[in-house]
Amino acid sequence: MAKTEFRALTVDEAVARLTPPAPTLICFHTRPDGDAVGSAFALSLWLAAMGSRCYCVCADEVPQYLSFLSADLQESVLAESIPTGFENARIVTVDTASPAQMGSLFEHFGDRVSLMIDHHGTGTPYADHLVVPQAAACGEVIFDLIAASGVDVPPRTASLLYAAISSDTGCFRYSNVTESTHLHAAALVKQGIDTAEINRRLFETRSYQGLKAEKAGFERLRFFEEGKIAIITFPYALQQELDVREEHLGTLIDVARCVAGVEVAVAIRGTIKGDFRVSLRSNVDFDVAAVASSFGGGGHVRAAGATVSADSIEEAQEKVLVALRLARS
Amino acid sequence: MAKTEFRALTVDEAVARLTPPAPTLICFHTRPDGDAVGSAFALSLWLAAMGSRCYCVCADEVPQYLSFLSADLQESVLAESIPTGFENARIVTVDTASPAQMGSLFEHFGDRVSLMIDHHGTGTPYADHLVVPQAAACGEVIFDLIAASGVDVPPRTASLLYAAISSDTGCFRYSNVTESTHLHAAALVKQGIDTAEINRRLFETRSYQGLKAEKAGFERLRFFEEGKIAIITFPYALQQELDVREEHLGTLIDVARCVAGVEVAVAIRGTIKGDFRVSLRSNVDFDVAAVASSFGGGGHVRAAGATVSADSIEEAQEKVLVALRLARS
Repeated sequence: MAKTEFRALTVDEAVARLTPPAPTLICFHTRPDGDAVGSAFALSLWLAAMGSRCYCVCADEVPQYLSFLSADLQESVLAESIPTGFENARIVTVDTASPAQMGSLFEHFGDRVSLMIDHHGTGTPYADHLVVPQAAACGEVIFDLIAASGVDVPPRTASLLYAAISSDTGCFRYSNVTESTHLHAAALVKQGIDTAEINRRLFETRSYQGLKAEKAGFERLRFFEEGKIAIITFPYALQQELDVREEHLGTLIDVARCVAGVEVAVAIRGTIKGDFRVSLRSNVDFDVAAVASSFGGGGHVRAAGATVSADSIEEAQEKVLVALRLARS
Repeated sequence: MAKTEFRALTVDEAVARLTPPAPTLICFHTRPDGDAVGSAFALSLWLAAMGSRCYCVCADEVPQYLSFLSADLQESVLAESIPTGFENARIVTVDTASPAQMGSLFEHFGDRVSLMIDHHGTGTPYADHLVVPQAAACGEVIFDLIAASGVDVPPRTASLLYAAISSDTGCFRYSNVTESTHLHAAALVKQGIDTAEINRRLFETRSYQGLKAEKAGFERLRFFEEGKIAIITFPYALQQELDVREEHLGTLIDVARCVAGVEVAVAIRGTIKGDFRVSLRSNVDFDVAAVASSFGGGGHVRAAGATVSADSIEEAQEKVLVALRLARS
């Protein structure tokens, strides 16, 4: 599905393509995050100010915790709710690195995307024209487009772009943050936006189910190798008993990882299929991706995952422990 | 103890006072945080590079979680360990807004502080000369001094100043963050420091006791007013049973505050004296300081506290609930 003929545009060239008013559909990736939603609606407000009728569209609805970004601008982002008048619209994607990330939108629009705006440096080109610099967030790229057009970034748009950048950097915590990220944030903060409130909504609101899962996980936290390895096992039966789903178990690994003295954290959860999903995190110079790959998994040096077959969660834990001890020795 | 005769210096004047080499003691506040430790040691490295022998000193030792900032520079920061040669040293304080914050150092040095470097805009002047602009962190002020002296900020110093700024802003989450904060961060990130690792050490390492207290608090979390008020009670007997101390209970309020839908969060803990310490947080436009002040306490609109007398923690909770309902009606 990748294109072999495409043209990478400079920021100025992209502005020139976007400036002429035309009905525009702005697509963003499935299971949208703050960068996708913030970038899409910021682009939409900017193009609308220049006379284009815009509509933001995604294969999935904006999740509840991000609705503060877009609810007053659009009720829904599903393809079914696209108003009339967008039949021959210009199609632009944001924060969508590959056709697969368009999900079900790809069959509607995948073959006629005129501009792909992303920030991953690489990706799978699927549009005629691309703007894909290396940046921490797509919000940085949208900011650069607006700035290059010579207009100011109004506060509402600044809030969206700040949310985009903060979201993709874990509020400036991750290693993808560069000098440029902070310079963009400075320019956005200058517009007088309530960054503390945006960050509270992005990062400090948790589901009760998620907290319940963390608490149960904490009770099952075990330490090995003088406290340097921390493992949480979470059997499938416990998920049923607590009525928690996979989406509530994403922070389980953090419970193990954040304990003082822990070098390698592991979360093992049972699945409905009977195998075990293992997440690995390293707080030190130890490659957990190598351990994950010994089980057919993969990832990065400090964050990796694999699926392990075993007759019980205890056996899965033992297999992981053996692999960790071998790799550490 | 406050001075009535003092002089506020510009950054350039402060640089001129600090440049001449002289033995220098750099004092920072009791119960030191990342801004205090980072600012003190960054100042120390800069003055040392200009030929001054420096020693950083505090009434309390640097806490374990911050030792990565200073352990390679000084083994201890207690007054007892000051080497010889500092008997008539120039005394500079950083991040210390009042004489009380010097703790036991005040009796040693309080009457001969030559320069107070702080960032709170106001404060209680106790030195002959002050540099106290309004900034999110003292680290911003130290950066400005170094920059004004015309030298580069080396990576080791940049790490200290980044830690100082990130620490006092909750990694850029709090409302004290300004355009200037991000511009300072940009300049520091440019030096090629490992900000992700600094943030992990500052924010993602927790004590096992603290996690234990949070989980016990979660079990005691109760909701009122359709889930808009969340209250955690933590009896003194439970603290003894779990062997947790006051320092482990600081994040209890966050457990209540972060649940989706909660507008006002309350944590009530029993004390050894038999009264009850109440912490209040507001996620919405509701003034918890007013509620706290009805119990003789105080604070800010969104974060406040008070001590409540009652015969039991249940009665204390009822008193707080009545006050909250009254204020909300």
